[in-house]
Amino acid sequence: MHKPLVAVTLGDPAGVGPETIVGAWTYLKLHERCRALAVGHPEVLRRAVKLLKKPIEVVEIDRPEDADPTPTQLPCLMSGSDDAAATPAAQIDPRGGQAAFDALLMATELAKAGRVDAITTAPLHKAAIHAAGHHYPGHTELLAEFCGIAAEEVAMMLYLAHGGSVQGKAGLGVAHVTLHTALRNVFDLLTVERIVASARLASTVARAFQSGTDTAGFMPRVGVAALNPHGGEQGLFGDEEERIIRPAVERGIAAGLNLTGPLPCDTLMVRAAAGDFDAVVAMYHDQGHIALKLLGMHRAVNITLGIPIIRTSVAHGTAFDLAWQGRAECSSMIEAIRVAGQLVSQRENLVWRR
Amino acid sequence: MHKPLVAVTLGDPAGVGPETIVGAWTYLKLHERCRALAVGHPEVLRRAVKLLKKPIEVVEIDRPEDADPTPTQLPCLMSGSDDAAATPAAQIDPRGGQAAFDALLMATELAKAGRVDAITTAPLHKAAIHAAGHHYPGHTELLAEFCGIAAEEVAMMLYLAHGGSVQGKAGLGVAHVTLHTALRNVFDLLTVERIVASARLASTVARAFQSGTDTAGFMPRVGVAALNPHGGEQGLFGDEEERIIRPAVERGIAAGLNLTGPLPCDTLMVRAAAGDFDAVVAMYHDQGHIALKLLGMHRAVNITLGIPIIRTSVAHGTAFDLAWQGRAECSSMIEAIRVAGQLVSQRENLVWRR
Repeated sequence: MHKPLVAVTLGDPAGVGPETIVGAWTYLKLHERCRALAVGHPEVLRRAVKLLKKPIEVVEIDRPEDADPTPTQLPCLMSGSDDAAATPAAQIDPRGGQAAFDALLMATELAKAGRVDAITTAPLHKAAIHAAGHHYPGHTELLAEFCGIAAEEVAMMLYLAHGGSVQGKAGLGVAHVTLHTALRNVFDLLTVERIVASARLASTVARAFQSGTDTAGFMPRVGVAALNPHGGEQGLFGDEEERIIRPAVERGIAAGLNLTGPLPCDTLMVRAAAGDFDAVVAMYHDQGHIALKLLGMHRAVNITLGIPIIRTSVAHGTAFDLAWQGRAECSSMIEAIRVAGQLVSQRENLVWRR
Repeated sequence: MHKPLVAVTLGDPAGVGPETIVGAWTYLKLHERCRALAVGHPEVLRRAVKLLKKPIEVVEIDRPEDADPTPTQLPCLMSGSDDAAATPAAQIDPRGGQAAFDALLMATELAKAGRVDAITTAPLHKAAIHAAGHHYPGHTELLAEFCGIAAEEVAMMLYLAHGGSVQGKAGLGVAHVTLHTALRNVFDLLTVERIVASARLASTVARAFQSGTDTAGFMPRVGVAALNPHGGEQGLFGDEEERIIRPAVERGIAAGLNLTGPLPCDTLMVRAAAGDFDAVVAMYHDQGHIALKLLGMHRAVNITLGIPIIRTSVAHGTAFDLAWQGRAECSSMIEAIRVAGQLVSQRENLVWRR
C-alpha cells in the first residue's frame, strides 16, 4: 500500500514548532497512515533533536518522493535560507517570519503540484511574518494567497478525534463561518451563502471521518449554532437567527444536507460532545474554540477547508513562553499529521472547492 | 445552629420545576446546610410527588418560619390562586406564567423582609409570563423590578462547584458583563464601569466559596475575558481590549482586586477549569455558558448578583419537551439550593449592592 506523503512545515523556528515535530516523530502512530517529511531548515530540527535528547537522525532530502520516515529517521526538505537557522529562540524576529513563510510556500507548492498529498503546518508568529514584510494576518490568508483564492472563501474546522469527552465515533468537527476578525465585524460577514457553504464543507469533512462500509449513503448530522443567546429567544435577543441562519439551514436541507438549527450554542455543544452531531457550524471564533479547547485542548487539530489542497495544523500558537525549553506538548502535532493522512485516504469523498 | 431558610419557587407549573424540587428533596445533602421550603401551589407539588412515586408529604404552611423540612416532609407556602393547579402540563399558558410570577413575587418579598435568608427559583417560561400580561424578558428583569433596581445593574454568575473537570477547590464562577441581549448590543453595553463592577461581584462571591481560616486576607484570582478572538491580536481583530477591557482591569487592580486580563476566552476557560482562577468575567452570554455547560451542564447554578437578596436558580429552562414525564434531572436544583444556603452562611463577605 502506498502511504500518502504529508509535508510538515517547521513554522517559526523561534516557536515550539520544531520541538513538537521532533517530539511527535518518535510515536509509532504518527507513521501508521502516512509518510511524513519536514519542510524547513534541517539545522533547526537537529537543534530540537539535541534539546529533546531523542534518538532521531535528521536526513536532508532533495525531493519529497525520497522521504523514508521512521521513528528514528526524520527526512527534511530544505526551504528558505540559512538565516532560518540563525533565528533566536522565543523571539519575534524577521528571520523567523521569513522561514515560516518560505516553508509554507514550498509545502503548498508541492501539494498543488501533487508531489505531496497533504500538508501539516507548525505555528507561525504573525508579528514575525509582518516583520519579514509579509502583511497577512495568518496562515489562512497566506494559504489563500498561495492558492489563488479569496481569503473569505477559506473556512476553518477545528477537529477532535473520538475519545475523552468526545463520544461520537467520528469525533467532532466545528466549522467556523467567520474566524479571525473582530467580533464587531461578524454581523456583516454572516450571509446565507457563507453559512450554507460552511455547512457543506463541515458535512463533507465529517463524512471522511466515518469508518465502516456504509459511508456512501451516510449524511453527517450537522448542528448549526445560533448567533445570539438562547437562539435569539424568538426575536427578543436579535434577529439574525430568523433573518439569516434559519433560511440557510432550510436551503442546506433542500440541497440534501442533514442540518439541524439554529440551536443555542451552549446546549448544542453539549449535545455534539455527547455524539448527537458529527459536526457543528459555529458563527464565530470563540463559539467553536471555547468548546473544543475545553473538550481537548492538546488534541485539537485545525483543518483548512475551501482550498484545493489538504491542510491541517496544530491548534496552538508559537508559545514563545515555553519554546525551546523541551516542555511543549506534541499531541496536537501527532493528531494533525494523522488527520492529514486520514483525509487523504478519503480524498474521493472530499470536495475542497465550494 | 440555626440553619438558613431558603424559599424555593415552583416556577411555571407546566415545566420541570415542580418535579426537580420533589426529586431533589429526597437527597440528604439538600438539607445539610439550610431549611428549604417551597413557594407555589401545593397541589402542583403533590402531583409531582405522585408522578415520581416519592415517599414525600407536602405540608402546607402559613409562615416560612414554620418550615420543618426533611427528606420526607416538603413544606409549601401557598402563592397565587388555584388557577396555578389548573395549568396544563408542558404548554405555554397564562396560568403557568401567572403562577411563576406570583411565587417569585412572594419569595422575593419574604427575602426583602428578612423572613427567609435566600431564594432559589425554578424556571419560568418567558412566553407564558408574557401571556399572563407581564412584559419582562425573564427572571432577572422581574427581580430587578421587585427589588427596585435597574435591570442593567443586575449581573449573573454561573457557578459550578468543585468536581469533575472543575479542579479548583472553590469551584468556578463566571460573571457576565452582558447577558440576555442580542450579541449586536454587547459593544455599546461594555463599559469600564460595568466590567469593574462585574469583576468586583465575581471576586466577592468567589470569596464566599473559599473554605478554611484565611479567607479574610484572600483575594480571589479573577480572569477577565477578552471580547475578540485571540484577545484582539494586538488590535488586528478589534480594539475593545485596549480601549475598554484593559483599562477596566487596571482600574480593578488599583482598587485591590486580583485581576488578570484581558485573556483570550478559549484558553482562559481551560486555565480556569484547571484551577488557575477562582472566577472569570465573561463579556457576553455564550462565552460563559458554552464553557460552564460543557464542564457540568447538570450541576450548573445561577447566582444573581447586584440585588439586595441572595438568589440562586437552576441553569436550565422549563424543558417542556420532557416536563411531567418523570425524567427531569434534579442535580442543578440540589446544587442551587445548597449554594443558596452556602452564600447565606458567608453573608458578611458578600456585598450585594455595587
